[in-house]
Amino acid sequence: MTDLNTIGEFGLIERIRQATPAPKHADTIRGIGDDAAVFNWGDDYGLLATDMLVEGIHFDLMYVPLKHLGYKAVAVNVSDIAAMNGLPLQITVSIGLSSRFPVEAVDELYEGIRMACEAYNVDLVGGDTTASRSGLIISISVLGKVPKDLITYRNTAQPNDVVCVTGDLGAAYLGLQLLEREKQVYLADPNMQPNLSEERSYLIQRQLRPDARTDIVHELRDLGIRPTSMIDISDGLASELLHICRQSGTGAVIFDENIPVDDQTHLAADEFKISPITAALNGGEDYELLFTVRPQEFDKLSTNARITAIGYLTANPDQVVLATKAGQQTPIRAQGWESLAKS
Amino acid sequence: MTDLNTIGEFGLIERIRQATPAPKHADTIRGIGDDAAVFNWGDDYGLLATDMLVEGIHFDLMYVPLKHLGYKAVAVNVSDIAAMNGLPLQITVSIGLSSRFPVEAVDELYEGIRMACEAYNVDLVGGDTTASRSGLIISISVLGKVPKDLITYRNTAQPNDVVCVTGDLGAAYLGLQLLEREKQVYLADPNMQPNLSEERSYLIQRQLRPDARTDIVHELRDLGIRPTSMIDISDGLASELLHICRQSGTGAVIFDENIPVDDQTHLAADEFKISPITAALNGGEDYELLFTVRPQEFDKLSTNARITAIGYLTANPDQVVLATKAGQQTPIRAQGWESLAKS
Repeated sequence: MTDLNTIGEFGLIERIRQATPAPKHADTIRGIGDDAAVFNWGDDYGLLATDMLVEGIHFDLMYVPLKHLGYKAVAVNVSDIAAMNGLPLQITVSIGLSSRFPVEAVDELYEGIRMACEAYNVDLVGGDTTASRSGLIISISVLGKVPKDLITYRNTAQPNDVVCVTGDLGAAYLGLQLLEREKQVYLADPNMQPNLSEERSYLIQRQLRPDARTDIVHELRDLGIRPTSMIDISDGLASELLHICRQSGTGAVIFDENIPVDDQTHLAADEFKISPITAALNGGEDYELLFTVRPQEFDKLSTNARITAIGYLTANPDQVVLATKAGQQTPIRAQGWESLAKS
Repeated sequence: MTDLNTIGEFGLIERIRQATPAPKHADTIRGIGDDAAVFNWGDDYGLLATDMLVEGIHFDLMYVPLKHLGYKAVAVNVSDIAAMNGLPLQITVSIGLSSRFPVEAVDELYEGIRMACEAYNVDLVGGDTTASRSGLIISISVLGKVPKDLITYRNTAQPNDVVCVTGDLGAAYLGLQLLEREKQVYLADPNMQPNLSEERSYLIQRQLRPDARTDIVHELRDLGIRPTSMIDISDGLASELLHICRQSGTGAVIFDENIPVDDQTHLAADEFKISPITAALNGGEDYELLFTVRPQEFDKLSTNARITAIGYLTANPDQVVLATKAGQQTPIRAQGWESLAKS
């Protein structure tokens, strides 16, 4: 018997992918291996993605308001559609609930879900409700679409492409550290007031209520740019960059000083004695987009404050590195998933 | 604060449905309220359904082999597509796993999933894998399609329509009773051999490895019959019939002697001192199809051994009754869902 932790989440997905036979339906364009599955719907490609959030693994209801959780559960799914350069259409929401949740808690959760549906122009069209012995489980599936000539995969990047990220990175991870610390303080003395001041509000918001970058999908279309590859940053920049490089057969050079990090992230990183670059590379949950464009296309983006060029791809797949201003290079490695919880 | 058990599963779904705004996308034809959501895909309607199975609520791994569980998880989703008169195309599978599951257990589960994909001609195109603190969670979403002129809803039945069911009912419920009893015997004395003889094999198979009736969808098409309404029997005949009647605004008279029950179900029902009709009405998990056809269409079906007419619809929505040969009528009521588990 082989412990799941020895192969890890990506090992498990790869094992499942390899055992999965080739699609039988001609309409199935792409299956396991990207942010969403891709189908031939005539004029457009259809997209389907799904994400499961489990209490005690992905969220702690001691500090996550249910309304924010509902919003986030939708946003992380929509983010997978954005990562294919697509826009979302419909979602289904399945929830497992233990008896400690009153009806009002479900109302709160769905209020957040509806707010996200409004924000992303998505129809809530179905789902499943069930009992659970172990707290809250949320499983969302999202359908989306993308014009055929705009679909963007992970495995189509080329050497010399410019590597871009949207927004800034590492904030959600430091938001989580702040919330976890305040929780410990509260558990030690329930009379203590939480110390989550204004100057940390951005970090908290990034952790509790992240947004999917559908705005960037619209913007790229307006600029007439189709990225050569794209992925959303759910597990950290390092892991996502390695997906693109591995699947495209390229290497990459990323300049650490170019990685966009917010001032609040810098301050909190100092406080927690974490390098902000480490938070950006391995923190995860930023739900920004990582994409590549041909060098000649990048000019159209260079004045966009929401998009930052952080490096370029190379022809050497063995070389995915972080480069300092001084010229030092260190290999970029992905962290594994959270260890499986005991039960 | 309101306990979820006071409103029940259907109350909760109704509450969510009422709070859900009308669809924003013109392509969203039907949202919450049927076996699957319905989309305009051009020539066909697209269908999306989803089901979540939670360890300790929906299955007990003491007697459910993982391979069967994987098969069943796919079959119950495909059954929702069949209930719309559609055929399945693709599925995504999300699993939550606690650390007690070795890699080999995941292999077993996916072997069953692949067998079902083969049986139903479905492509496995994606999913999510995550840790769980509470055993196994399986959430599957399925896409399907149906020609526009064949789509079959729950709310389009009419008075005088003939009520039909496929296969036989109540067997899965008695299979569950048998497995539960053998489990108790085993727990009391682990040296006892399980007493699951040949004459019970059908009941066990119906519980552990049910099949979706896509064969009936093909058959109805071959016969040129479009049902006036259809639903799959997951919660028991009573509950499903009431869905059709409530949503169509009809009543129904069902003849108890017409309800198809297998010989093994009769024998086991005697043994457990349960009425086989009660098992059929409230047992659930049969995954047969309940549908209605216009009276003049029924002739085409009357010689089909796999389809049984069990009654007819009436214009009185307050009268959904079970009728005996002697002419006695009793109202048909739906049982609630399983109480929410404690946690």
